[in-house]
Parts: sequence; structure tokens; C-alpha cells
Amino acid sequence: MVQYARLDAAFAALSDRTRRGILERLGRGDASISDLATRYRMTLTGMNKHVRVLERAGLVATVKVGRVRHCRLGPRRLSDESAWIAQYHQMLEERLDRLDAFLERTKGDQA
Amino acid sequence: MVQYARLDAAFAALSDRTRRGILERLGRGDASISDLATRYRMTLTGMNKHVRVLERAGLVATVKVGRVRHCRLGPRRLSDESAWIAQYHQMLEERLDRLDAFLERTKGDQA
Repeated sequence: MVQYARLDAAFAALSDRTRRGILERLGRGDASISDLATRYRMTLTGMNKHVRVLERAGLVATVKVGRVRHCRLGPRRLSDESAWIAQYHQMLEERLDRLDAFLERTKGDQA
Repeated sequence: MVQYARLDAAFAALSDRTRRGILERLGRGDASISDLATRYRMTLTGMNKHVRVLERAGLVATVKVGRVRHCRLGPRRLSDESAWIAQYHQMLEERLDRLDAFLERTKGDQA
């Protein structure tokens, strides 16, 4: 169940273009909430909310030094999410293979 | 912008374990709303809501025949979502490579 909840949280975190942008930005280097807010022309409160969502999903980690909150990528690297989609694609391919095999058999019957 | 909105909708659709389960189920074969509701012990109304979210994201297509609404996988196959995560992983790897190169140089300076 923990695994399900993690996938839920990560996919929900990815469902917003600003949050995907924050991950891409932090992939190139750490940044403060205020750096990120400036980049996305957003209030500090608005940016804080986005970062919290990413933090709860384990995708971002933050540390407060003095009055500045620094953000960096968190411990989770979207591997489970990538694996879920890959497994789904695999299943679709197997389904297409079965369909192909069925059509081949049908063709054989008609010949 | 359309592209962003599509990613938003698809990731949001994936952020619920029941909806991920519906996609896996439909990957094995078409099903009616009532089949899916029975499987997930859910009301028809509850299942309809989940299917609508998947339908808006293009991941499921439905057709009503008489009183029964049949569901099958839609035209979108999570390729863009998979590509986004792959691109993100690629960026992380490049970052690690740069870090490795930096550490190598630092070691060279100390020798």
C-alpha cells in the first residue's frame, strides 16, 4: 500500500507543468524558493506550495539556512513511475502480439 | 501549450491506483463500466467518474451500446509521459557525469 501511495503522490506531483519545470531546473543545480519564485513569476507562498507537493512525493528535499529555504532534488528519481509505464507498454505489446497471432490463424483458416 | 495540458491530464489520471488498475485491466481486454465497478467494488457513479478522467486524458475511449457503456484503451499510450521521465533521467545522468569529471579534476589538483 505504501508503494501505491508513493506512485499516487509522484504522478500527482508531475501533473502540473510548473512542478515539472521545477524538477528540470533543480536537475541542473540547487536553487532557493525565492530563485524559483522569480523564475516562474510567482509569489513565495505559491512557490512554497508547489515545492511542498514535490517534497511530500520525495522528489525534492529542502533545508532552511537562516531565512532562505534551499531546494535540491530528493531521494526519489521517478524509477517506479518509469517502471509502471514500461510494464504497461509491455502489456500492450503482448496484446498486439496475441492479436497478430489471432489474425495469422484466421488467415490460415480462410486459405 | 496543448502538449503541456496533455501531460498534466495524463499524469493526473495516473495519480490514482484505481485508475492505473483500470488501464491495466483494459490492456487485457475491453470491459463495461459495470464490469469495472464490480471488480473494484464501486458504485457505477464512482466508476463513471474515474473513467471520465481517463477519457479526458485520451487514455480510455467509451461507446454506449443500448444501456451499456463499453470501455477500451484510447488513442494515447503514455509515450509522451514516458519520454518526459526518460529525458529527466538523461539530465540527471549528465549531471552525475559532470560531478564525476569535477571530482576527477579535483583529485588531479591534489596529487
